[in-house]
Amino acid sequence: MVQTSVINDLLNAIGDTGLFGERRRRRIGREEVSALIAALLTGRGEASSTERAAEVLATYRDLDGAGRTFVFRTLLADYGPDTTALTTAAERYLAEPGHSTAKALQRAALPQRVEFFRRINNVQGGTQALVAMRCELMDRMAHHPDLWVVDDDLKRLLIAWFNRGFLTLRAIDWQTSAAVLEKIIRYESVHAINGWDDLRRRIDVPDRKLFGFFHPRLGDEPLIFVEVALTTQTPRAIGPILSGERTPIRPEEATTAVFYSINNCQEGLRGISLGNFLIKQVVADLTRDYPNLKTFVTLSPVPTFRAWLEGPEAPLTDETRATPEASLAPLAAHYLTAVKDARGRPLDPVARFHLGNGATLAQINPGADGSARGLAASHGLMVNYRYALSDIEANHEAFVNGGAVSAAPAIAKLARSVRPSPDAAPLPAPV
Amino acid sequence: MVQTSVINDLLNAIGDTGLFGERRRRRIGREEVSALIAALLTGRGEASSTERAAEVLATYRDLDGAGRTFVFRTLLADYGPDTTALTTAAERYLAEPGHSTAKALQRAALPQRVEFFRRINNVQGGTQALVAMRCELMDRMAHHPDLWVVDDDLKRLLIAWFNRGFLTLRAIDWQTSAAVLEKIIRYESVHAINGWDDLRRRIDVPDRKLFGFFHPRLGDEPLIFVEVALTTQTPRAIGPILSGERTPIRPEEATTAVFYSINNCQEGLRGISLGNFLIKQVVADLTRDYPNLKTFVTLSPVPTFRAWLEGPEAPLTDETRATPEASLAPLAAHYLTAVKDARGRPLDPVARFHLGNGATLAQINPGADGSARGLAASHGLMVNYRYALSDIEANHEAFVNGGAVSAAPAIAKLARSVRPSPDAAPLPAPV
Amino acid sequence: MVQTSVINDLLNAIGDTGLFGERRRRRIGREEVSALIAALLTGRGEASSTERAAEVLATYRDLDGAGRTFVFRTLLADYGPDTTALTTAAERYLAEPGHSTAKALQRAALPQRVEFFRRINNVQGGTQALVAMRCELMDRMAHHPDLWVVDDDLKRLLIAWFNRGFLTLRAIDWQTSAAVLEKIIRYESVHAINGWDDLRRRIDVPDRKLFGFFHPRLGDEPLIFVEVALTTQTPRAIGPILSGERTPIRPEEATTAVFYSINNCQEGLRGISLGNFLIKQVVADLTRDYPNLKTFVTLSPVPTFRAWLEGPEAPLTDETRATPEASLAPLAAHYLTAVKDARGRPLDPVARFHLGNGATLAQINPGADGSARGLAASHGLMVNYRYALSDIEANHEAFVNGGAVSAAPAIAKLARSVRPSPDAAPLPAPV
Amino acid sequence: MVQTSVINDLLNAIGDTGLFGERRRRRIGREEVSALIAALLTGRGEASSTERAAEVLATYRDLDGAGRTFVFRTLLADYGPDTTALTTAAERYLAEPGHSTAKALQRAALPQRVEFFRRINNVQGGTQALVAMRCELMDRMAHHPDLWVVDDDLKRLLIAWFNRGFLTLRAIDWQTSAAVLEKIIRYESVHAINGWDDLRRRIDVPDRKLFGFFHPRLGDEPLIFVEVALTTQTPRAIGPILSGERTPIRPEEATTAVFYSINNCQEGLRGISLGNFLIKQVVADLTRDYPNLKTFVTLSPVPTFRAWLEGPEAPLTDETRATPEASLAPLAAHYLTAVKDARGRPLDPVARFHLGNGATLAQINPGADGSARGLAASHGLMVNYRYALSDIEANHEAFVNGGAVSAAPAIAKLARSVRPSPDAAPLPAPV
Repeated sequence: MVQTSVINDLLNAIGDTGLFGERRRRRIGREEVSALIAALLTGRGEASSTERAAEVLATYRDLDGAGRTFVFRTLLADYGPDTTALTTAAERYLAEPGHSTAKALQRAALPQRVEFFRRINNVQGGTQALVAMRCELMDRMAHHPDLWVVDDDLKRLLIAWFNRGFLTLRAIDWQTSAAVLEKIIRYESVHAINGWDDLRRRIDVPDRKLFGFFHPRLGDEPLIFVEVALTTQTPRAIGPILSGERTPIRPEEATTAVFYSINNCQEGLRGISLGNFLIKQVVADLTRDYPNLKTFVTLSPVPTFRAWLEGPEAPLTDETRATPEASLAPLAAHYLTAVKDARGRPLDPVARFHLGNGATLAQINPGADGSARGLAASHGLMVNYRYALSDIEANHEAFVNGGAVSAAPAIAKLARSVRPSPDAAPLPAPV
Repeated sequence: MVQTSVINDLLNAIGDTGLFGERRRRRIGREEVSALIAALLTGRGEASSTERAAEVLATYRDLDGAGRTFVFRTLLADYGPDTTALTTAAERYLAEPGHSTAKALQRAALPQRVEFFRRINNVQGGTQALVAMRCELMDRMAHHPDLWVVDDDLKRLLIAWFNRGFLTLRAIDWQTSAAVLEKIIRYESVHAINGWDDLRRRIDVPDRKLFGFFHPRLGDEPLIFVEVALTTQTPRAIGPILSGERTPIRPEEATTAVFYSINNCQEGLRGISLGNFLIKQVVADLTRDYPNLKTFVTLSPVPTFRAWLEGPEAPLTDETRATPEASLAPLAAHYLTAVKDARGRPLDPVARFHLGNGATLAQINPGADGSARGLAASHGLMVNYRYALSDIEANHEAFVNGGAVSAAPAIAKLARSVRPSPDAAPLPAPV
Repeated sequence: MVQTSVINDLLNAIGDTGLFGERRRRRIGREEVSALIAALLTGRGEASSTERAAEVLATYRDLDGAGRTFVFRTLLADYGPDTTALTTAAERYLAEPGHSTAKALQRAALPQRVEFFRRINNVQGGTQALVAMRCELMDRMAHHPDLWVVDDDLKRLLIAWFNRGFLTLRAIDWQTSAAVLEKIIRYESVHAINGWDDLRRRIDVPDRKLFGFFHPRLGDEPLIFVEVALTTQTPRAIGPILSGERTPIRPEEATTAVFYSINNCQEGLRGISLGNFLIKQVVADLTRDYPNLKTFVTLSPVPTFRAWLEGPEAPLTDETRATPEASLAPLAAHYLTAVKDARGRPLDPVARFHLGNGATLAQINPGADGSARGLAASHGLMVNYRYALSDIEANHEAFVNGGAVSAAPAIAKLARSVRPSPDAAPLPAPV
Repeated sequence: MVQTSVINDLLNAIGDTGLFGERRRRRIGREEVSALIAALLTGRGEASSTERAAEVLATYRDLDGAGRTFVFRTLLADYGPDTTALTTAAERYLAEPGHSTAKALQRAALPQRVEFFRRINNVQGGTQALVAMRCELMDRMAHHPDLWVVDDDLKRLLIAWFNRGFLTLRAIDWQTSAAVLEKIIRYESVHAINGWDDLRRRIDVPDRKLFGFFHPRLGDEPLIFVEVALTTQTPRAIGPILSGERTPIRPEEATTAVFYSINNCQEGLRGISLGNFLIKQVVADLTRDYPNLKTFVTLSPVPTFRAWLEGPEAPLTDETRATPEASLAPLAAHYLTAVKDARGRPLDPVARFHLGNGATLAQINPGADGSARGLAASHGLMVNYRYALSDIEANHEAFVNGGAVSAAPAIAKLARSVRPSPDAAPLPAPV
């Protein structure tokens, strides 16, 4: 079989799944693994530690699933803070609280495993390996919930390393390398890209743009990307945006930028803020390049709408049940503005993201997405969130501080028309 | 006066000293400063915080020295860890030590000022501003020793951000931009570069190289750089290396790479390991490009030798006082191998650096540097530290674990010839 | 319909064929065209002529086929040399031959249309337009044979502008932009590339290379490219080279570089030497990167073999007709070494190219290409030409001066086994 | 002595003058030179000729002055057109004038030495070598006037190769490499740059720009460059432009772009149009970047004014002689608008250049340049030529067709105030 760069990617990261992984795996004793980790952390010199870190990484690649679990559990059990020192520091702080004892306590509380991850990061390809490693770590948290402690350490480091200041925004177009473009095809999960010709319709026409964040240590790996359509009005459906039959407009004529797909590419960076920075930067760049753009909106899915509608919480009445199609919009308005999670935030994750960023729920579009996926998620309903520069700050504050959701007056009115009725049966799908 | 990029640099960083700083300064009330910091840290959203962080930075730039001190003291006094939470967490940990309570304690111990620095770092130019800010912070530690607590927080972040993985090595030559080259001229402090023609003799000849580490967020600012001469033997003096009258050799003929000047450029990164990584990388790159290179040595100053020699600790005898010139080498051998600081490391900082990296003290060269600076530091004596790939690891381990200094047999013998005599008078300067 | 860069390419060059061309065309009178050309050539200043040249080019783009023919005929009829001046210069030279009169005659003989093409070339996109224009000019030469005079002028300019010194060699791989890669897919005509996955098998594996010549004025347009397989022996068939099922080797292990496809991309550059420079450069670059490479061979089609075999000239005997399969190799040996065109060069164009470059006919491979195209051209037979650095110069000289063909002894012997018999019937296809 | 890139430049081009040239020279027989040239031109294959061309070039580098003269004379004597063929072609054309016979004559008239230069150009560094070679050729034309025939052949090729389309405009600033910047310092001959600090005042301030044309084959060698000051009015003197004491303005505030120095860098490209294209391009780029710019003027020397004034042709009267200072402006107005060379163009070369490009003589500034050079050339008088987009075309046409000079009304009036008086004595220098 021809080895291509997809396969190389895997090998270069942690090369786990599939044929190659299997073939490479060898029987590695737990003592050997423990000894390697210990050697890495006891050598005090940073420079000479890089070779050892590379060795640890190579061994990790050769480990099977159980072996890797053992690594994580070792990091949890043996490489937390020094308990004697921590006890002493805690006692001293309690005895004499102050800057100095607090600082000493902070230092004593720092787990030794943090240094483990730091040294791995020094290795060529180490950052990518840690991102991949975190995926595996999170996978294991279902059966090993106490591993969240290790994940927290790794996540804090990734937050420092994937600081906004280190990210670079790249405009992706037909001049971009195939190595990057194939990853765009692979990672697009909102509105799938069906091969290179389909990709081309999204990046090689004047009224379509694609922007992604990249990190110097991850090379051609996008972290997150957004697809933008330049239009003359807020779109009510995804079909015309993706159509290959349309006539493009000159971007200078456009008044509206539509963010119609946002994709996080690195599962291992879950929980690390990227999307809000991306949107802010793209709005700024587009405004500079096309001063006629006045409106910035999304065309967004409501991924959890139908599940909620078919669940026990949906406020369905005989009327809504009789006219399912007409009832969708009011129910969606109600769902997005009034239905919250335990922490008082919108239940729908996409709503949570955009409303949390300071956007306004601007428009509800039944029948906007006829794809199997769209129908399954929300009976085909999509919504527009609008980013109005003048309101973002206030919206964001109100959302963060009081859970307030910003919605257009018509939507707020629509939402109020829905009377909650907790014991209702689920809504049948509109035909 | 014509504003040029040196001046712009200052303005772009924190624009403190001199005429421009003065002119820009305005009277800013302490309440305003406090309010700004508070606003930056209470807004929970990361994206919207960037504007506030930019505002804080702009205000900081306008502050005078006392105002800036106030900022640091405020960060110390008001933005440590939440004391109530920390007390609770410490008590809980002591009551029930475990992964979970340790992690909770670690989180509670994290000072709020860490988030302050993080958000500043998100601003365009923020990293450079923080590096400059740390210089000012360290300056103030003489009169405000408790500020070390704030410095420790900032330093930890800088360690994460200036991780080896983020540094890029650049070969500096005559193709490099003037913007970078002028910084090289400015930052060279071991063997001063006297203008562009002198620079040229160090970078635009086939047997001279210059390499520097750069960071994506600091643009054209070098972090540290090393100057290398390719030769056919280990040099005994600096003059022939720097001479403009010599005939260059073809680099392929060279057997020896001499690191004759290493310069840390960013005072604000003090204490963050860069030099050992730089040397390792340059050795690797040179070995790849010029396979004939077998020997890697420094030609290094001994900056504290004369001060020690003239101090009360020097083991001077009537004999050494009678033959000051002949005694220099043995005394230097003794000084570098046997005289230690409180932590058991060589007193001389250059020795500490190279020996700590795993180098061997290979040769002692009296009369190697006739410059005023060289005479003042060490009566003109210089030394060669040798980096032998096969020994580095072991030397480093021995140094870190037992304080052992690796020295050539002849030097060890020379050192043993010196009999310590604590009550001796200082050595007169050789004529 | 979505406009993509393929379409833009056409518009940007001369935008002729198809829907877009049609739509843009307007009725342009011949007087207008003549006046434009005249205005371009009478304005004496070069700088101000660029706008006029752009106008001429825009008008040309709007012209239909007849209009364009009119342009070429106008250039022939009205913009040759000044006949009065040429007559005078010719008479003077004959009267008094010498450097000065020869130079004056040379100047007088220069057609004015040369300046027309030169000024077009100054326009942004002008070079590409001229290359496209030459295609159209050559097309018209079938019905307008006298246009060769105009073509000769344009070709001479293109020879100057596409001078080897201006060409840059680029290695094409998966890091290359999609804009370039799609052109590679489009221009590959020897062994068609079936989409992006197939392309990837040729450029994103360690033992396959692709190199192309580019010109600064033509941007992403390749002029010519060659595909190379790194192997451990001279291949006897194309199938294993193109297979997606093979296991790649490490390029350092390879001893042999196989040029298995060479493609001229710009019909408008016909007759301008590119291929020989390309091969020389690629051999040099590969030798530098992979010192183990010792053998450089092609795996080449014999595009005219079957046509010749089925024509009246083939020396078929009863025997060859009885054993068509066994006879193919000897007949091919004879064909390639002994059958010449009117100018004494090999009849087969691929043979002419490689043998003219100094290669040696090294091996004949019946059954090497089972594709429809391969069977139609040569009953599936392919050959290897070998480039041996030590022989190239002598082979080339012998070829140029005496028409000598360099062939391996075994092939020369095989060729001699064929007895020419001019009145023979064509060979039946082997089954 | 330390070899630096200046020296390398020389060696890389033709390495003639000075120490290095001398040292390398060896005794080379004329037969050997002749044989090399012959070998280069008789080998028919282009690719194999590159090695021979490199050999010719290497030999040329080793030749002394007389040897090089021999090369040029050989090219003149032995490598003109084939005289027999040319005679035949001339006779045929005269007998039967037509496209075909004209083309045949054109081909026959092409000297063989053209191929010589073409093949040299294929060599790495060949273009630069030919440009340097042309300098030497032009030098020899004083004593060998018939070499103009060879120069004409080389110049025609250079015109094709240095076609506007191949030139790239680069903005030169403090980010530019030292390798380029040092050439700017070296080549500035209008207002000398005194070292790197002085250079910085011209390229590292917001209201100063420098643009140059470069050619892909000449690397870091500028062909021509222009220095621009952004101001709020048309300057009357050079001092304030060059001063290091001034306060820069923000470029957005500027209304006027002043071209205060234009330098041709390559003597070997003499006679090849570059300046007019450069000015046009810079005007276009500045207009795009700074839309507030409305006025584009030069501040130009009048290099031949004083020589003319002190010559026999100056129309001096008793009055002008009595008030030399007051008379300078009217005399300059007269000189620049009314005094012409044999071909009807302005006698002053700078006037000829700008007026020929379509500029208008806008302002005359006595006392504008107090430097020794300025006083020697024009008693310190400088002028402004204005490039007004709306007039350029018409001015250029009027200039080319009728020799008309465009001047501001006030200047035209001033010029008319001077009454020619051919028998006048030269003007004394104003004190």
